[in-house]
Amino acid sequence: MKKNVKMIVSYDGSRYYGWEHQPNTDMTIQGKLENVLSKMVGSDVEVLGAGRTDAGVHAKAMVCNAFIDTDMSEDQIFDYMNKYLPDDIGVNKVIFASERFHSRYNAVGKTYCYTCYYGNTKPIFDRKYVYILEKKPDIDAMKKAAQYLMGEHDFASFCSNPRMKKSTVRLVDSIRIEDKNGYIKFYYHGTGFLQHMVRILTGTLLEVGFLKRQPENMLELIEAKDRKLAGETAPSCGLCLIEVDYS
Amino acid sequence: MKKNVKMIVSYDGSRYYGWEHQPNTDMTIQGKLENVLSKMVGSDVEVLGAGRTDAGVHAKAMVCNAFIDTDMSEDQIFDYMNKYLPDDIGVNKVIFASERFHSRYNAVGKTYCYTCYYGNTKPIFDRKYVYILEKKPDIDAMKKAAQYLMGEHDFASFCSNPRMKKSTVRLVDSIRIEDKNGYIKFYYHGTGFLQHMVRILTGTLLEVGFLKRQPENMLELIEAKDRKLAGETAPSCGLCLIEVDYS
Repeated sequence: MKKNVKMIVSYDGSRYYGWEHQPNTDMTIQGKLENVLSKMVGSDVEVLGAGRTDAGVHAKAMVCNAFIDTDMSEDQIFDYMNKYLPDDIGVNKVIFASERFHSRYNAVGKTYCYTCYYGNTKPIFDRKYVYILEKKPDIDAMKKAAQYLMGEHDFASFCSNPRMKKSTVRLVDSIRIEDKNGYIKFYYHGTGFLQHMVRILTGTLLEVGFLKRQPENMLELIEAKDRKLAGETAPSCGLCLIEVDYS
Repeated sequence: MKKNVKMIVSYDGSRYYGWEHQPNTDMTIQGKLENVLSKMVGSDVEVLGAGRTDAGVHAKAMVCNAFIDTDMSEDQIFDYMNKYLPDDIGVNKVIFASERFHSRYNAVGKTYCYTCYYGNTKPIFDRKYVYILEKKPDIDAMKKAAQYLMGEHDFASFCSNPRMKKSTVRLVDSIRIEDKNGYIKFYYHGTGFLQHMVRILTGTLLEVGFLKRQPENMLELIEAKDRKLAGETAPSCGLCLIEVDYS
């Protein structure tokens, strides 16, 4: 009988065209995982992810699952995967889940962290994981603006997909902004996020931080449901999926 | 009149053939610094480093200096250097030093840190800055061995240069070993280090940690003055120059 293998995966997304497998490249996270699992069991395996991260986005704990026919133990699968995956993708945990577990449908929340850096010296050792700002933004103004963004809203202004047919209403129950040693971390927690939503929220908050917008502008933005009115999409390198919640 | 420009430099050594400039490649740290400074002033500039790091070794605060003819301020030089250096080399500080300051001759001590990792999950985000161990070594045994290595000794057994004509006596006044969250950090402080010395010391301590040697073996090793008897040279990626002291 097939086992439902749940995996928690970390990756440095710098070299990859995002999570989702694509026909013309093997440089996707899902593609790499599927390749290694398919070799392991000797037949094609599909890996289901809790979400799709964009090209260049990182993850500390993406959750995914795959139905595979195997006699291997959790530890053996863990060792095999980590041995054959490239050094910028790692499996942190392998668990045999119940047959009904689905990493996307069962996910009830996600935490993303977006990291900016405004320090005086160049960030040499984590340069691939931060968005470098020219100067320090106004943290209090951004915190004020974040208050308006929290809650259940139609986030159409913060969605890069203009042909989105499904609802663009989402619940963002927390936006926390930390400022420490030249690093600003934006933590977003919500039930789900639209395409590029975290990066557009961050880009918009930064425009508030650089006094190009007022915090109160967030109200109009939500109301307008027009992507063109929101801020720039912050670069993918600063974004990291931190956690996926299951009930 | 020429100014003596002292610089504190950070670099991710992964892509480079070490500190020292070489005739057939521009992929050295000294070479990159000299190129940018030479363009800045319009004539050849020589950069003097506090030491030479090997290929693949990193630095958080290498100190170097260069005599240059310029009207630029410290801040202007800082900005120019950081703009034109690649993103894995950064200048943390630029100071006009006294004419007599020499980054190598005036250095009275150096701190190196060697980082190993033995955690259960792959170190995705700092994989280029650690040496990955298969399992956890015996920390107490290594600490005991480190006690024998501290002090003023002839470190010929820990020097990779067999044609070293000068004295191989050095003072290592502190070796501190930290074990935290799967990371082992070996901090070495001394007046100076021989070629590959920190990496050979670490490789030898790890052999004690993996019970291939007794801590007491360090006494014989120091006595023998024979490189062949010491442990393997630990890989360069785990090593980082942390600080250079001046009186």
